[in-house]
Amino acid sequence: MYDIAIIGSGPAGISAAINAKILDQNFIWFASLNVSKKVGQAALVKNYLGLPDISGEQLSKAFLDHAESLGIKPVDKVVNGVYSGGNCFTLLCGTEDFTAKTVILCLGVDTAEIEGEEGLVGRGISYCATCDGFMYRGKNIAILCTDKRFEHEIEFLCSVANKAYVLPLYKGHEIKSDNAEILVKSPIRLEGEKRLEKIVFKDGYLEVDGLFILRSSVSPSILLHGLEIKEGHIVVDRAMRTNINGVFAAGDCTGRPYQYMKAAGEGNVALHSAVEYLAQLK
Amino acid sequence: MYDIAIIGSGPAGISAAINAKILDQNFIWFASLNVSKKVGQAALVKNYLGLPDISGEQLSKAFLDHAESLGIKPVDKVVNGVYSGGNCFTLLCGTEDFTAKTVILCLGVDTAEIEGEEGLVGRGISYCATCDGFMYRGKNIAILCTDKRFEHEIEFLCSVANKAYVLPLYKGHEIKSDNAEILVKSPIRLEGEKRLEKIVFKDGYLEVDGLFILRSSVSPSILLHGLEIKEGHIVVDRAMRTNINGVFAAGDCTGRPYQYMKAAGEGNVALHSAVEYLAQLK
Repeated sequence: MYDIAIIGSGPAGISAAINAKILDQNFIWFASLNVSKKVGQAALVKNYLGLPDISGEQLSKAFLDHAESLGIKPVDKVVNGVYSGGNCFTLLCGTEDFTAKTVILCLGVDTAEIEGEEGLVGRGISYCATCDGFMYRGKNIAILCTDKRFEHEIEFLCSVANKAYVLPLYKGHEIKSDNAEILVKSPIRLEGEKRLEKIVFKDGYLEVDGLFILRSSVSPSILLHGLEIKEGHIVVDRAMRTNINGVFAAGDCTGRPYQYMKAAGEGNVALHSAVEYLAQLK
Repeated sequence: MYDIAIIGSGPAGISAAINAKILDQNFIWFASLNVSKKVGQAALVKNYLGLPDISGEQLSKAFLDHAESLGIKPVDKVVNGVYSGGNCFTLLCGTEDFTAKTVILCLGVDTAEIEGEEGLVGRGISYCATCDGFMYRGKNIAILCTDKRFEHEIEFLCSVANKAYVLPLYKGHEIKSDNAEILVKSPIRLEGEKRLEKIVFKDGYLEVDGLFILRSSVSPSILLHGLEIKEGHIVVDRAMRTNINGVFAAGDCTGRPYQYMKAAGEGNVALHSAVEYLAQLK
């Protein structure tokens, strides 16, 4: 049982993690080793106070170096679901689970849901290849994937399914399975009565038995049921508290402006608020 | 007429200023050249993301270098009052004034009021030696001063007054005037019916005709009448908007945690909100 679980690899997540370490907290930090991908892609960042005219790659490295200098290692797992149970939260990562008294969500905004997605979760839509893959043995599936690092999960799903339509939303895919058909297009809507039936594109649709969505992070409202969302962002107060006791959020997922400086500041505040919340529990 | 006036020399103020410059805004930035004094005093800052294990002095220098690299120069004046007038704000700095459409307050928290202070402003209490000094020609005054850089104002006031009790709240004063009496103690309360009558200390009191308070920044509620304050902090929403249209605040003056990272992030957000507000005015 951890006191604090931090989810996210951007500036907000790293900022929360370094503060957790400095304040000697019992915490776990879920983040891709491919940390701060979005930061790394920025050509030039001019307004990160104290580090003028830095490339996204250098800034990303400075963030990671900071965490490393404190001996912090992220757990490289995608959290698929957060479930509130009494005095703690259970975090599911595929078939593994972790428990924590507080959760800090630093999910970024790369988590745009597809129309119809939320209503079909668990009814033909899955976020975890290893958890649900075997349910689709010999069936026809689609796989939407936002990041090359999930290609081993695509290969696994192809090995189980009869046929897999793969929709890679990134460049330079290296999917080799014989029964995979690569489609370079994005779904605009998911349809189905009791279960997913159709994946709709601008120029047609696919009928499949199931859809796997492999994203770096899950949309907040799907990740944690009951979380208050407004216009696509997690609603927080000035202390970065969400509407759920013990759950905090920071960074782009809480709203504009999408700025590294704002995210890093909010990660700091969220961590301090979590520590304050924990002190009150005792 | 400026579009944006930024007040403050800490991380929030500098962050707002660099963003104003990068976004090509018509702005004025009021800050001491002795910028980020508080930051400079910190022995070691461990949690400013991207700059691990940095001394306060180095961090302060990194902030200033960032502003300098963008060619930004602060105006080294203390703003004594902000007055709302129709579509703009007038900022008084001693006998000078400036106008701006929006104001961003980054005042820090070194502005603790003395009990009784707010009620006696303009009735025996002044914040500006050059503005009000001559009203006390030949009278007995007290001067409370928080920063060595105001010593020339103390000398000026001593040259005008009959007698001056000087209360320096810093170390290493070099006040030389013959009619100055240095008292190393802090007032706990200011008393008076129609005007200031007594400055009360733990161990006694002083009766004077006037009190000059020379602080790096003026308490927010005194600086700008009508500003909503709660528990000593300026009340802001997530966009750093105060209760007064066109007035934003950022950094320690908006509440805990008092963290450089939070302040820098909030300065960024406040500036973006001011730009958004200006766009709506047009």
